[in-house]
Amino acid sequence: MSRIYYLYFSPHRAYVRKLKNVLGFVPGNIKLYQMAFRHKSVATTIKDGVKNSNERLEFLGDAVLGSVIAELLFKLYPYKDEGFLTELRSKIVSRANLNQLSRKLGFNEFMEYDARMISYPNKQSSLLGDAFEAVIGAVYMDKGYRFTKEFLLTRIIKPHVDIHTLEITETNFKSRLIEWCQHLGKEVQFVQVENPPGESGKLFSVEVIVDGEVCGLGRDFNKKSAEKLAAEKACEYLKIFEAEEFSR
Amino acid sequence: MSRIYYLYFSPHRAYVRKLKNVLGFVPGNIKLYQMAFRHKSVATTIKDGVKNSNERLEFLGDAVLGSVIAELLFKLYPYKDEGFLTELRSKIVSRANLNQLSRKLGFNEFMEYDARMISYPNKQSSLLGDAFEAVIGAVYMDKGYRFTKEFLLTRIIKPHVDIHTLEITETNFKSRLIEWCQHLGKEVQFVQVENPPGESGKLFSVEVIVDGEVCGLGRDFNKKSAEKLAAEKACEYLKIFEAEEFSR
Repeated sequence: MSRIYYLYFSPHRAYVRKLKNVLGFVPGNIKLYQMAFRHKSVATTIKDGVKNSNERLEFLGDAVLGSVIAELLFKLYPYKDEGFLTELRSKIVSRANLNQLSRKLGFNEFMEYDARMISYPNKQSSLLGDAFEAVIGAVYMDKGYRFTKEFLLTRIIKPHVDIHTLEITETNFKSRLIEWCQHLGKEVQFVQVENPPGESGKLFSVEVIVDGEVCGLGRDFNKKSAEKLAAEKACEYLKIFEAEEFSR
Repeated sequence: MSRIYYLYFSPHRAYVRKLKNVLGFVPGNIKLYQMAFRHKSVATTIKDGVKNSNERLEFLGDAVLGSVIAELLFKLYPYKDEGFLTELRSKIVSRANLNQLSRKLGFNEFMEYDARMISYPNKQSSLLGDAFEAVIGAVYMDKGYRFTKEFLLTRIIKPHVDIHTLEITETNFKSRLIEWCQHLGKEVQFVQVENPPGESGKLFSVEVIVDGEVCGLGRDFNKKSAEKLAAEKACEYLKIFEAEEFSR
C-alpha cells in the first residue's frame, strides 16, 4: 500500500522511482535517504550546532557495513585467521573501493553538495564513499539488519565486488610509499627506533621519515612487519592513496 | 526440546548450566562458546596453521558489538554529531571497559589459557576483553543479530554500563601522559611539526616526544586538538592505560 503510494502518488514520487532503480527496492522513509546524500556543505543546522548532513548516518552505516562484511568473510574463509579477515575487510571497505562502488551504483546522481566548498578533488572523492556508508545507515534505519545484510550481499557485494581479486591483491604500502617519494623527489628512510621502556624486547619499532619528518610508526615482532605497518601509516598520513585514486 | 536436552541430558550439561547462569539464556551450539573462551596459548591447529582459538570469533564479535553500540548511541543522542558518537563508542568498547565487563559477568571462570605463556599482566588483562568480544561473536553465530542486540542491551549495557558517566568522563590523554612521564622521570615534549607537502595549511601537526623518541603524532584543525590526538596515540604506544588498569 505505502509502496504504491510512494511510487505513484507521493509528492516525492519521481525521487522515489529514481531511488528504486538504483537500490532495487522501494524505500520507506525518504528523508533518511535524502539525508544520506546530503554533504555537510549544504546541510542546515537542526539543533545546537548539529546539522542534517549525512555524517551521523555515515557513522551508523560504517558500523553495519563492517559487521555484515565481517560475517561474510568469517563464513567464506573458515580456515583463515583473523589477521587475514581484518586485512581483507579493510580492502573491501577502503575509501577507494567505496568511492568506486558509489559511482558504479550511480549514487553521484543523488549527491547534494556545495561545489564551491569542495573544490579540491581528494575531498570530492571521499564524498561518494562517505555517502555510500550513509546510505547503508539509511537502509538499516529504514528496513533493519536482515534486510540491509541481504541488500548488501545480493545487490552490492555479489555483482560489484570481486573478493577473490581483492584477496590476492597485496596492498604493498612500502613500495607505494617509495614510488610516491621518488616521483616527488622526496627522501624516505625506514629507521629502527628504540622501544618504549618496560616494553618486551621482542618488538621492533620502525619509523618512516620523509624529508626529515616522521610520518609513520610501526611495531611488530619482526622488522619487516614493523616496516610494513609504518609504511601503511605513512601512506595514510600523506594521503597517498587518495591522491592516486584521483589520478587514475 | 533441545533446551531441555542441553540442560539436563547432554554430556556438557554442567557447562551449559554454568553458561546459562552467566549469559541468561541456554546456548545452542556449545562449541562456539568453548571456542570463545579459548586463548590461542591453549589452542590446537585445526588446518593449515589456523588454530581453534577465539581470535576469529573476536574479529566477528568486535564488528557486531560496534554495530549494536553505534545504533544505540545513534538513537540515544539524536542531536549529537558523529564525532561525539565515535568518541563515546570507543569509551564503551575500550579494552579497559571490556576487560571489566568480562570480569563482572564472570567470564574469567570460563577462560582457558596457558598461564605459563601469559605471565605478564598486560597480556592477561586484554585476554578477558578479547574473550568478551569472542562471546559476542559466538552469540551472533548461535542466535543471530536481533538476539545478540537484545542480549547486549538488556543483559550487559543496561545493568553494567553507565553511558552517562562515560559521556561526561573526559579521557584526558594529555594529562595522563604527563603524569606518567613525571612518575617515571621522563621528559615529555609536544612539538609542532610541518605538515606534509600539498596539505592544507589549516591543519596542525603535533608530535609527542618522550625522552627523545617520537611516540605519537596528531593532526587537526587546531593545535589543542592535534596535541590531544598525539597524546592519545602516545598513550596507546606506551601502553599507559594497560599499565594503569593493572595497578588499580
